[in-house]
Amino acid sequence: MKTIIKNGTIVTSSDTYKADVIIEEGAITGIVKNATASSEDKVIDVNEQYVFPGGIDVHAHLANSGTVDDFESGTKAAAIGGLTSIINFTMPNEDQSILDNLREWKSKAKPSYIDYGFHSIINQCNDSVLDQIPSLANEEGVTSIKLFMAYRGENMVSDLEMYRLMKKAGENGMIVNVHAENGDVVDELRMEAIAQGNTDPIYHAYTRPATQEAEATNRAIRIGEVANTPVYIVHVSCSDSLEQIIEAKKRGITVYGETCPHYLVLDETYLEQTDFEGAKYVCSPPLRKKEDQDSLWKGIATGNISTIGSDHSSLLFDDGKKGKEDFTLIPNGLPSIEDIFHITYHFGVHEGRISLQKFVDVVSTGPAKIFGMYPNKGTIAVGADADIVIFDPKQSRVISQKTQYQSTDYNIYEGMEVKGAIIRVLSRGEEIVRDNTFLGEPGRGKFIYRRKFSESSMNYSESD
Amino acid sequence: MKTIIKNGTIVTSSDTYKADVIIEEGAITGIVKNATASSEDKVIDVNEQYVFPGGIDVHAHLANSGTVDDFESGTKAAAIGGLTSIINFTMPNEDQSILDNLREWKSKAKPSYIDYGFHSIINQCNDSVLDQIPSLANEEGVTSIKLFMAYRGENMVSDLEMYRLMKKAGENGMIVNVHAENGDVVDELRMEAIAQGNTDPIYHAYTRPATQEAEATNRAIRIGEVANTPVYIVHVSCSDSLEQIIEAKKRGITVYGETCPHYLVLDETYLEQTDFEGAKYVCSPPLRKKEDQDSLWKGIATGNISTIGSDHSSLLFDDGKKGKEDFTLIPNGLPSIEDIFHITYHFGVHEGRISLQKFVDVVSTGPAKIFGMYPNKGTIAVGADADIVIFDPKQSRVISQKTQYQSTDYNIYEGMEVKGAIIRVLSRGEEIVRDNTFLGEPGRGKFIYRRKFSESSMNYSESD
Amino acid sequence: MKTIIKNGTIVTSSDTYKADVIIEEGAITGIVKNATASSEDKVIDVNEQYVFPGGIDVHAHLANSGTVDDFESGTKAAAIGGLTSIINFTMPNEDQSILDNLREWKSKAKPSYIDYGFHSIINQCNDSVLDQIPSLANEEGVTSIKLFMAYRGENMVSDLEMYRLMKKAGENGMIVNVHAENGDVVDELRMEAIAQGNTDPIYHAYTRPATQEAEATNRAIRIGEVANTPVYIVHVSCSDSLEQIIEAKKRGITVYGETCPHYLVLDETYLEQTDFEGAKYVCSPPLRKKEDQDSLWKGIATGNISTIGSDHSSLLFDDGKKGKEDFTLIPNGLPSIEDIFHITYHFGVHEGRISLQKFVDVVSTGPAKIFGMYPNKGTIAVGADADIVIFDPKQSRVISQKTQYQSTDYNIYEGMEVKGAIIRVLSRGEEIVRDNTFLGEPGRGKFIYRRKFSESSMNYSESD
Amino acid sequence: MKTIIKNGTIVTSSDTYKADVIIEEGAITGIVKNATASSEDKVIDVNEQYVFPGGIDVHAHLANSGTVDDFESGTKAAAIGGLTSIINFTMPNEDQSILDNLREWKSKAKPSYIDYGFHSIINQCNDSVLDQIPSLANEEGVTSIKLFMAYRGENMVSDLEMYRLMKKAGENGMIVNVHAENGDVVDELRMEAIAQGNTDPIYHAYTRPATQEAEATNRAIRIGEVANTPVYIVHVSCSDSLEQIIEAKKRGITVYGETCPHYLVLDETYLEQTDFEGAKYVCSPPLRKKEDQDSLWKGIATGNISTIGSDHSSLLFDDGKKGKEDFTLIPNGLPSIEDIFHITYHFGVHEGRISLQKFVDVVSTGPAKIFGMYPNKGTIAVGADADIVIFDPKQSRVISQKTQYQSTDYNIYEGMEVKGAIIRVLSRGEEIVRDNTFLGEPGRGKFIYRRKFSESSMNYSESD
Repeated sequence: MKTIIKNGTIVTSSDTYKADVIIEEGAITGIVKNATASSEDKVIDVNEQYVFPGGIDVHAHLANSGTVDDFESGTKAAAIGGLTSIINFTMPNEDQSILDNLREWKSKAKPSYIDYGFHSIINQCNDSVLDQIPSLANEEGVTSIKLFMAYRGENMVSDLEMYRLMKKAGENGMIVNVHAENGDVVDELRMEAIAQGNTDPIYHAYTRPATQEAEATNRAIRIGEVANTPVYIVHVSCSDSLEQIIEAKKRGITVYGETCPHYLVLDETYLEQTDFEGAKYVCSPPLRKKEDQDSLWKGIATGNISTIGSDHSSLLFDDGKKGKEDFTLIPNGLPSIEDIFHITYHFGVHEGRISLQKFVDVVSTGPAKIFGMYPNKGTIAVGADADIVIFDPKQSRVISQKTQYQSTDYNIYEGMEVKGAIIRVLSRGEEIVRDNTFLGEPGRGKFIYRRKFSESSMNYSESD
Repeated sequence: MKTIIKNGTIVTSSDTYKADVIIEEGAITGIVKNATASSEDKVIDVNEQYVFPGGIDVHAHLANSGTVDDFESGTKAAAIGGLTSIINFTMPNEDQSILDNLREWKSKAKPSYIDYGFHSIINQCNDSVLDQIPSLANEEGVTSIKLFMAYRGENMVSDLEMYRLMKKAGENGMIVNVHAENGDVVDELRMEAIAQGNTDPIYHAYTRPATQEAEATNRAIRIGEVANTPVYIVHVSCSDSLEQIIEAKKRGITVYGETCPHYLVLDETYLEQTDFEGAKYVCSPPLRKKEDQDSLWKGIATGNISTIGSDHSSLLFDDGKKGKEDFTLIPNGLPSIEDIFHITYHFGVHEGRISLQKFVDVVSTGPAKIFGMYPNKGTIAVGADADIVIFDPKQSRVISQKTQYQSTDYNIYEGMEVKGAIIRVLSRGEEIVRDNTFLGEPGRGKFIYRRKFSESSMNYSESD
Repeated sequence: MKTIIKNGTIVTSSDTYKADVIIEEGAITGIVKNATASSEDKVIDVNEQYVFPGGIDVHAHLANSGTVDDFESGTKAAAIGGLTSIINFTMPNEDQSILDNLREWKSKAKPSYIDYGFHSIINQCNDSVLDQIPSLANEEGVTSIKLFMAYRGENMVSDLEMYRLMKKAGENGMIVNVHAENGDVVDELRMEAIAQGNTDPIYHAYTRPATQEAEATNRAIRIGEVANTPVYIVHVSCSDSLEQIIEAKKRGITVYGETCPHYLVLDETYLEQTDFEGAKYVCSPPLRKKEDQDSLWKGIATGNISTIGSDHSSLLFDDGKKGKEDFTLIPNGLPSIEDIFHITYHFGVHEGRISLQKFVDVVSTGPAKIFGMYPNKGTIAVGADADIVIFDPKQSRVISQKTQYQSTDYNIYEGMEVKGAIIRVLSRGEEIVRDNTFLGEPGRGKFIYRRKFSESSMNYSESD
Repeated sequence: MKTIIKNGTIVTSSDTYKADVIIEEGAITGIVKNATASSEDKVIDVNEQYVFPGGIDVHAHLANSGTVDDFESGTKAAAIGGLTSIINFTMPNEDQSILDNLREWKSKAKPSYIDYGFHSIINQCNDSVLDQIPSLANEEGVTSIKLFMAYRGENMVSDLEMYRLMKKAGENGMIVNVHAENGDVVDELRMEAIAQGNTDPIYHAYTRPATQEAEATNRAIRIGEVANTPVYIVHVSCSDSLEQIIEAKKRGITVYGETCPHYLVLDETYLEQTDFEGAKYVCSPPLRKKEDQDSLWKGIATGNISTIGSDHSSLLFDDGKKGKEDFTLIPNGLPSIEDIFHITYHFGVHEGRISLQKFVDVVSTGPAKIFGMYPNKGTIAVGADADIVIFDPKQSRVISQKTQYQSTDYNIYEGMEVKGAIIRVLSRGEEIVRDNTFLGEPGRGKFIYRRKFSESSMNYSESD
């Protein structure tokens, strides 16, 4: 039995064309003109709608302590929003080895509806940690780690630790995610603000200035350069950081930038909202200026930003209320996993900022290639998993917390009308979403054992 | 009857995967696992060799007066070298209207072995010219013009003419090629050199300094910006010009850069060769410094250079001897059409400077998209023309004038051993090259009626 | 008989200190602690007020046809505003040779109250012109020419002419002023605007976009680079042009930037004023964005902008009314000569954007050095002319057309209250202004026979 | 009794002119034409030789443990080399408070021949340290501290410490010196090199790559930016670091760059010398590429480098021999104090890279202004200390260890013939050097109680 998607407009990061897609045993086995179906085949006639490779969010924080989306609810929201794979971050636990920690997270992810992988967050560097890194890549299929330059006392590592961890990762063909903000400076600014009675949410933005994100971005890139390790800067929020990436690429350094949908469409003024509404928009790096949005879009269009991640962290606004007297207590993170695909399409493609190809590139192909999931994920091609989104560009929908699947009690894009509707989502050939109804079963998602960066074609050229 | 390419490693600008390609009536109708062939089908088993889309050279000067390759010999050399399409430049004739001129060139091209299109060179601007430009795009399928900022008294146009021609082109959805060198200044420098007795070929380089190429590049981009017209800078030869393109892209301007294989692998010292050997390397812009090569490769890797053109101009070295006493008399132009594919693959992919995807992008997909030939040309996808190169990356060959098909009496890459061999070339499904033997018939090439830039997906995003 | 300025705070481009200045025969002969005066000496006790070198405006258009300030009224306004020297532009006359033209302008300048020199505007290039350039520098003491890249059909020269004129100027040790806007493009934009019915003054700004100023700035610098000639970009109005200058300086090119007071404190919105009030602010380049002001101030502070010129062109607003139906008919130019010193001091020094030293540098020392008037002009040092401004930083005054000396029927800074008052102005030791009263006699100003740029210390280092 | 310097060519950072200088009680009391001397006056006729303000080296390490120049021998060498003031670094001592440590250093300096001040090196940050910083500026006349981003376990501070120390310094009007290299990374690279058997001196350069200096430079500037503190980057050695400074200045940040004579004229190849000769050139940052020298000179010419410091650290080469098996054991630092003035003049002014004014600016005026010694030091003006160098630009001399006064057993500029000779040096009016003979007495040098940066005119404009 085959599944045949008929009459679609297939869109990949390089091509747009009309053809039928043949799916067998969860994978694409043929792309042809006028596929012939036998009676037992399942035929989905999509009537020229777009046939996209499924979205891939390589920046998710499901099941973090304090958040309300576990892998079950979170991947359901992801799927309804056009995603067929995610990479989630582990959260280190000082009582566990890195490998044990990873295995616990693999176990947490079992109820997933879609395929998933992990980046291991590492927040210390000793012989034990260094010894386990090769196993991550060589045995566990986890070919990326994440390091924080912020959050002192929690996940932050020193430059010495960063260098050693990067070097070890690089020697094992891995790529390193970096949260780039100067944590030492930011923490001081936060304490100063509170000491001066500046307690409102907007001070969250003022105390995490763009210049400290740019500083850390430059530092991470240059440390990666001497450690001989590719670096992936997560959630680039501002023009100043992007500029560091552009300059590094000009020097020939292997570095990638990721931005998030909220940095593309929301700005600092959201944090100024009264009645503590601003607390809904507390994330790090903070929302920036309007001009930064423009720079980030241009960064996508020119290939200097390679991916869009959600940085999904589903915190209840009610919980946020505890920060009313002190913005530093407001839980940090935004829900974005359900809307990443729609927001990027609408403000990117529909409003003319990026092409269809670039859209597919940043929401699917780029993430898949950079993180070793390609060619199984990230494209519509023979041999790839049949992770497919059928998308009608003529319909539109209004984003709202009322209709969302993610578990938060608010939606940061509340009320935005976006062009385009996700009609069906297939994960390895199985239809898990149809007409905004969820059809999948929990636990059907599989762990993605990822290739090393050093073995991918991406190791030469940043903007393929 | 179908043609089936079995067991290939298909390589496009985004993907590498194993599958069989089914060709019917000159076009790709299916890409499948394990294609089944009937007895009348032609099966080509390629044993995991690369299956590339045919190379596209959008910068050819076949049949120019003074050159020795007409469309017959030139397209034969192109085909043997892995090209399945070219865009050639017309050469204006003051006794003809632009449209008449174009038609004469279309007629000259009839003996072609491969498909071809034209850029109309325009070297004047009056009402008649402006009135004909829409017809080029709307009736003749020639959706690009070319303007020269150099060669005063021949093809050079003023800024006023450039603005008006660009604006008219832009209004008609066209893209404008620009030869960017400050002709006024360069001509003066040349006259000064001769006046001072500096007559050797190396003065060709000294009198066309990079700073004047960068100047004109910046000027063309900024005039295109206010004329609201996409600009394509041909033969970017140096870091300084590339920098102008990068800065413009950062500002959000639609501009593309092309370089040529000789700027990537040869340098200024070739012009210093004694016994007038330097004259073999006279082209404009001139060969530059070693460092410029490195910048250009990085420009390709980062998407700031979008295409590689040959700038093929097949001049006999014997003719060159007339410039022995005066470098300004040396005919200007290099033969490169036969080796563009090999040189780019070897020094790019084989030596690790760019990925396979980027290679396909700059020698095929980029040119096709920018110049409105896509999706018929430039990819391996259902619906595309079956323009295909079968390439064995394990073999190697030595480039030599003795074995070349192009008509020049020397080869600028003489003696270079390059990795990779073109095993077969298919043009619209027809095998025209096999094992270095030519199988095609003259006149089988067809004119490519090109789409407008404004109607392509490329109008949003420069680095798709 | 000596004149002694006692108890002043002497301010030069490098120093601030308290001392007495001794003046004999129009020149400074001593700077000492506690100068002793004989009974016949004239003693001016300035009670710690600032003792500045007189302001120098190297960008004046007095006596231009259509303007209402001749050298008599114009230099009176200049003197009252703290200037002791100006360099005025000639205006070419096709019926005269350059040298005859210069001599006529020298004659026009005879009624001047302060010292004056000329830049010869050259708007054509033939053997006669090229032959006269050496005489300008070697015989006439006019060591700078000015070229226009705008105003086609009037003063605009082609790149070829610019190169040849620059080269000749450079060979004779001269420096070349350039009005940098792409005239071809600007003229087209202006015609298009009118054709589309866009006739209001604001379209003056829209049709002279910053990108075309930046283009021409870059072009002029790069042509000067190969012509081996120092280039002085007049009236830099925007960040984009400034950036071209910064990049050139980084490459080691000898180039200077000038801005004008109106670009530092007025912006594009002035052109949007209703009731045709916008016409009062029509100058070229046009007023720009607020952000550009900030960039220009930073350019001054960092030495990338070297001077401030008035670009004084005193046009009556009443005359302007003829452009009511068509902004292209509005006379082009602003009155600024009387306020350049005050505006720069107030918004620069008083508001903390630049130091006292930098103030002196851009209004006096820089102009004097770049244009060969130093060390007679531009400093307070032994041997220098006693061109001195006594300035009380504690007083303030309101700028108004009602109290001005320049002849226009409006003042572009009307109503601005500025800190600091010019108490006295000495020109070669003679007190020509005291307490806002004019004491000088017409005709007392002398022609300044200027040194060559090549013979000044400035030929090595741009930011001395 | 007066001292009169007759017939000199006075050179300041802004002016060159002929006049006589009158000195009374150690200070300049007059600069006049034709000074009249009474019989008891001392008259020095200098016959048009240059009269420079005395050189100021704000980067000296005299009396450091392990070095062989104490304040007596070191300041003698400095004076013979044209310096009349130095600022020396203290060296922290964990057994002492900062203030006690400073006082001990003040005591060490008592035998000085010339005037001296201190920068306090601070290598920890606790309440006691933070509490003492205001006293440095307000009571001790030490208005600058120095922080190290390298030398972990010795002087290196963390970003947190740097921020806090900078903030405290800034609040007290001070300026902060920063040694900018990423110590964490550099230390790792050094250990790796040794582990791999790469023990030769050249590895000193390879393990302190320019990219890590640029990283730290950018970080220091950006931390200073949020701490609201002016930052002075010591010993900028490479183009990449300079670029960080230029970019910061463009953003309007108050930052200054210093380079050293050895970075201007020596390069990395000196470290490759055989027979362990390379060890003579071990300093940090290391000597760089030839191209970096060119960038640094351009940085001086354009005002992006503000000063030249010697970084004098007089280590015996014999001692160096202990690093023969391991470059990390080679003592770190070069002797340069005696030659800074000559080297800068010769390669700067004589060879045409910078003007006389810029020379005075970087060796005297700039240092004096940035570090609050101006107007007593750094200029020749009424009221200034009579710290004066009489310099004959027509003579020349050969630099050699054999004739030097500094105590090292080698000279890094051995054998270089430099144009110009120091004829006399006056310190506060007293002639301490004449015709290469030393006339001063130890202990005549005085401590310089320095002004705060915040109170100097330099706080607005970087390139005065």
